[in-house]
Amino acid sequence: MKEEDKLSPWKNKLHEIIYEADTPMGKLFDLILFVIIIFSVILIMLESVKAIDAEYHEILFVLEWVVTIFFTVEYIARIICIKKPSHYIFSFYGIIDFLSTIPLYISYIFAGSQVLLAVRAFRLLRVFRILKLARFLGEASQLKRALKASRAKITVFLFAVLIASVMMGTLMYLIEGDEAGFTSIPTSIYWTIVTLTTVGYGDIAPITPQGQAIATIIMLLGYGIIAVPTGMVTAEFTRQNKDKSNDDEPGRYVHINTQCCPTCSKEGHRDDATHCYNCGSLLNE
Amino acid sequence: MKEEDKLSPWKNKLHEIIYEADTPMGKLFDLILFVIIIFSVILIMLESVKAIDAEYHEILFVLEWVVTIFFTVEYIARIICIKKPSHYIFSFYGIIDFLSTIPLYISYIFAGSQVLLAVRAFRLLRVFRILKLARFLGEASQLKRALKASRAKITVFLFAVLIASVMMGTLMYLIEGDEAGFTSIPTSIYWTIVTLTTVGYGDIAPITPQGQAIATIIMLLGYGIIAVPTGMVTAEFTRQNKDKSNDDEPGRYVHINTQCCPTCSKEGHRDDATHCYNCGSLLNE
Amino acid sequence: MKEEDKLSPWKNKLHEIIYEADTPMGKLFDLILFVIIIFSVILIMLESVKAIDAEYHEILFVLEWVVTIFFTVEYIARIICIKKPSHYIFSFYGIIDFLSTIPLYISYIFAGSQVLLAVRAFRLLRVFRILKLARFLGEASQLKRALKASRAKITVFLFAVLIASVMMGTLMYLIEGDEAGFTSIPTSIYWTIVTLTTVGYGDIAPITPQGQAIATIIMLLGYGIIAVPTGMVTAEFTRQNKDKSNDDEPGRYVHINTQCCPTCSKEGHRDDATHCYNCGSLLNE
Amino acid sequence: MKEEDKLSPWKNKLHEIIYEADTPMGKLFDLILFVIIIFSVILIMLESVKAIDAEYHEILFVLEWVVTIFFTVEYIARIICIKKPSHYIFSFYGIIDFLSTIPLYISYIFAGSQVLLAVRAFRLLRVFRILKLARFLGEASQLKRALKASRAKITVFLFAVLIASVMMGTLMYLIEGDEAGFTSIPTSIYWTIVTLTTVGYGDIAPITPQGQAIATIIMLLGYGIIAVPTGMVTAEFTRQNKDKSNDDEPGRYVHINTQCCPTCSKEGHRDDATHCYNCGSLLNE
Repeated sequence: MKEEDKLSPWKNKLHEIIYEADTPMGKLFDLILFVIIIFSVILIMLESVKAIDAEYHEILFVLEWVVTIFFTVEYIARIICIKKPSHYIFSFYGIIDFLSTIPLYISYIFAGSQVLLAVRAFRLLRVFRILKLARFLGEASQLKRALKASRAKITVFLFAVLIASVMMGTLMYLIEGDEAGFTSIPTSIYWTIVTLTTVGYGDIAPITPQGQAIATIIMLLGYGIIAVPTGMVTAEFTRQNKDKSNDDEPGRYVHINTQCCPTCSKEGHRDDATHCYNCGSLLNE
Repeated sequence: MKEEDKLSPWKNKLHEIIYEADTPMGKLFDLILFVIIIFSVILIMLESVKAIDAEYHEILFVLEWVVTIFFTVEYIARIICIKKPSHYIFSFYGIIDFLSTIPLYISYIFAGSQVLLAVRAFRLLRVFRILKLARFLGEASQLKRALKASRAKITVFLFAVLIASVMMGTLMYLIEGDEAGFTSIPTSIYWTIVTLTTVGYGDIAPITPQGQAIATIIMLLGYGIIAVPTGMVTAEFTRQNKDKSNDDEPGRYVHINTQCCPTCSKEGHRDDATHCYNCGSLLNE
Repeated sequence: MKEEDKLSPWKNKLHEIIYEADTPMGKLFDLILFVIIIFSVILIMLESVKAIDAEYHEILFVLEWVVTIFFTVEYIARIICIKKPSHYIFSFYGIIDFLSTIPLYISYIFAGSQVLLAVRAFRLLRVFRILKLARFLGEASQLKRALKASRAKITVFLFAVLIASVMMGTLMYLIEGDEAGFTSIPTSIYWTIVTLTTVGYGDIAPITPQGQAIATIIMLLGYGIIAVPTGMVTAEFTRQNKDKSNDDEPGRYVHINTQCCPTCSKEGHRDDATHCYNCGSLLNE
Repeated sequence: MKEEDKLSPWKNKLHEIIYEADTPMGKLFDLILFVIIIFSVILIMLESVKAIDAEYHEILFVLEWVVTIFFTVEYIARIICIKKPSHYIFSFYGIIDFLSTIPLYISYIFAGSQVLLAVRAFRLLRVFRILKLARFLGEASQLKRALKASRAKITVFLFAVLIASVMMGTLMYLIEGDEAGFTSIPTSIYWTIVTLTTVGYGDIAPITPQGQAIATIIMLLGYGIIAVPTGMVTAEFTRQNKDKSNDDEPGRYVHINTQCCPTCSKEGHRDDATHCYNCGSLLNE
């Protein structure tokens, strides 16, 4: 391990605080970040309400700048305290961090880019990073496993639903026509999915007896086929429950912590790991 | 056990009637209370219907006073016949009893507090206390156990749904704008949840092709992810069914009655109990 | 067995045709009856469509009389060919038969009783009698068993849903008021159930931010608790499937036919039965 | 095997490309066909959007002719390279191919037959033929098996739902009448199904208190009985999962390919098959 590969002690410390959640400081940082993210998303929501924005525009504006500067500092800190900044910058969360911080600056440079401001709401995605702790609950991962196991079936199912929607939508377009709101085939397909999923806005609704008859069939179909994804996921959950109760071999699981490799940013290291299992570089103690 | 801790015989009797349901008198009292609560809630409903209130205002008014006085007397009786009244007064049901009895009196003192009158509908919550008998059916408790076991999973699920709704809502706000009813981000989020849960009022509905395309995705998503809570609860029920059929050890369950400690108001005593399992004070025979 | 207890041969024959479905004639009669019932229900539907009634009133009127006379003859035949007519007349199907036949006659005697004519739609209930064959499919009975086993749980569940609806409805009445359509507490409760069951007509919809926030909670609640009845019924079906596969003892089931006792009208006799298992009187061979 | 039964080598080659998907050429052909079908369906959709059709009518027209000619050539090729063309022409896919290719030609001969053009959307059904590969995923077939096993139960269920809808619809017609939109019994039945399946358009909605009360019952019913199909399908999936894990006998499954008999068009031949298992004629190597 070469000397230049090592981060200076304070950067190591910073890395531990910002990227990990095993030390009290790391936990505190995650908590503060969580609160500020939620707060900033509420700010964005309030700004979009015309009545509130009209009255409190000044305050909202100042608070937004405070939040943006905080995120800017955090973004720079994240780049500094990692050995290979490019790993962070071009990672999923790195791009999200950048996109959710930059809009306020851009809105100064280019007028009319106010629409970009709403992009800041993507900050909420950052919450998932903080919630990596949730992984330890084991619940989210069971959920994910169940969905993953049913993925192939769900794809086949969704594909069949889509084809049926296109066929039914075209049929309804032929039968109902412009008067009832079925102005084009894409609109009719949109209506079919609104009906099949039992959402039923009612902005478009059949008025001819034939149209209503076909709508009835679509509804009963939608009411019935909801059983399919439900059945698949449920069978999966039941199977997992059974597997878990059959699974008594000791030592198959190992406890992992929230450490994150300062070089390649991989997570999921064993508690007693000294080197990253992905790139082999030294982990912080 | 000191002498002042003991209730006088008639108070003991009253306690048995009001708080318990093992004697014929106790059962009769619960039944009467049940009927009066339902009756009083119907009264409140009728009062809120303008046409009915206009014609029968006098009768409704008198009946409401009769009910209120009955509840007042019951409230005072509950306080008198318990050893530590504060235990009742500040319990969940004590507060509900107070809040649902007081509004009519207040409406006399302060004009314009008619809104408070609707608070009386919370009387309905009192029905749950009477239904403690339902516990013996074992059904409600199985229901509760299944929901409790799935709680962690449901929380993770709800959290994911909420974050997705905020993201999607913001996106729709950007795409659709004021014309279609997406006047602010909170309104858009409201619409997203209306769509995701397949409620679909139709008061707000996308009109642009892009908006309708994203709405389609949200609907299919909502149609699909309903499988998740269903799957979780079902797997739980299936597991419970299996546990029950495997569970043949005798003596693991003991029959409990509706007795309720006159000192600390704890419920769930064994039929043969002479002292409260919580505070150790003597139970009524 | 006394002589007067016995039906004359041709009445015996008629009983076998009308009440049973084991002979070719009996099957044919059931089929004809099925077709006429469906046909008569379609007649009633068409009559209610103003445009069709205006043009084809004469034809519909004549056809309705033909059907009514057929049903009248059938009703009389059913009374004649049974030993104890009162058993049929006051049975569930006897009353349905009477109520669905009489309206046309009444509409002649009393003017303005046209509303009664729609009562004829209850003829459809008669289809269930003909479908007693469906019992042999075993499916309907499994369905019934699953629902029956879950009945107690479903009642507890429905009760909880209703109480929650009353509470939520009252709350929405307080928050939203007349402007949004929440004109009375019953109307608000109606809206709450429309929302909770994810139907969502949109004739009434919250317009204040607080109202929309509570509506959001109700929707998520409704989206979640649908898991409860589904979970219960599914667990029941799963259990039944397992029981069935464990159940290999021979001779536990016996084949029954559609014969029906000419005295007491009980059904479900064994193929080799000579006497009714209920009243002991002789069955037709 | 007689000489005239054999296809010439280039027809054999063509048959392999068009009807099968085991050779690289066959796979490529399927992929191209898939893309063109999807593309042609998008074309039809765009044509139906008035704004787009107005601007790009020329381009869409030319592209549609290109696609139609491609499909015509394909249709002729399919007839040529099969031993018994009638087997293809009158098969399900043969008819679909014909119906989805002919409309453009017809619209030239008969004016006013533009409606026929939308029939071209049925081209989408052809996608299923290409997806015969999906069979190998095993998922679609499990789905189909689960639905098939539950078919009898689903039929009984649907039948009960329909009868209940007719009864409820008639009742609502009597109660609500014209003002609320319940103009005829068929319309009322349509509304009942809209409500029972929790679609809830809101184009028709009860306005009288009695009507709203019955609507509430229908909604709760619909909310509850959705548990039935879900429960059935789920129990089926669970059973299949269990069967699969119990099924350890080797050699019960055999690998099949996408070959398709040049004589009778049967599919599902074993990899090592030399003769069709259906008609016994020689398969292409």
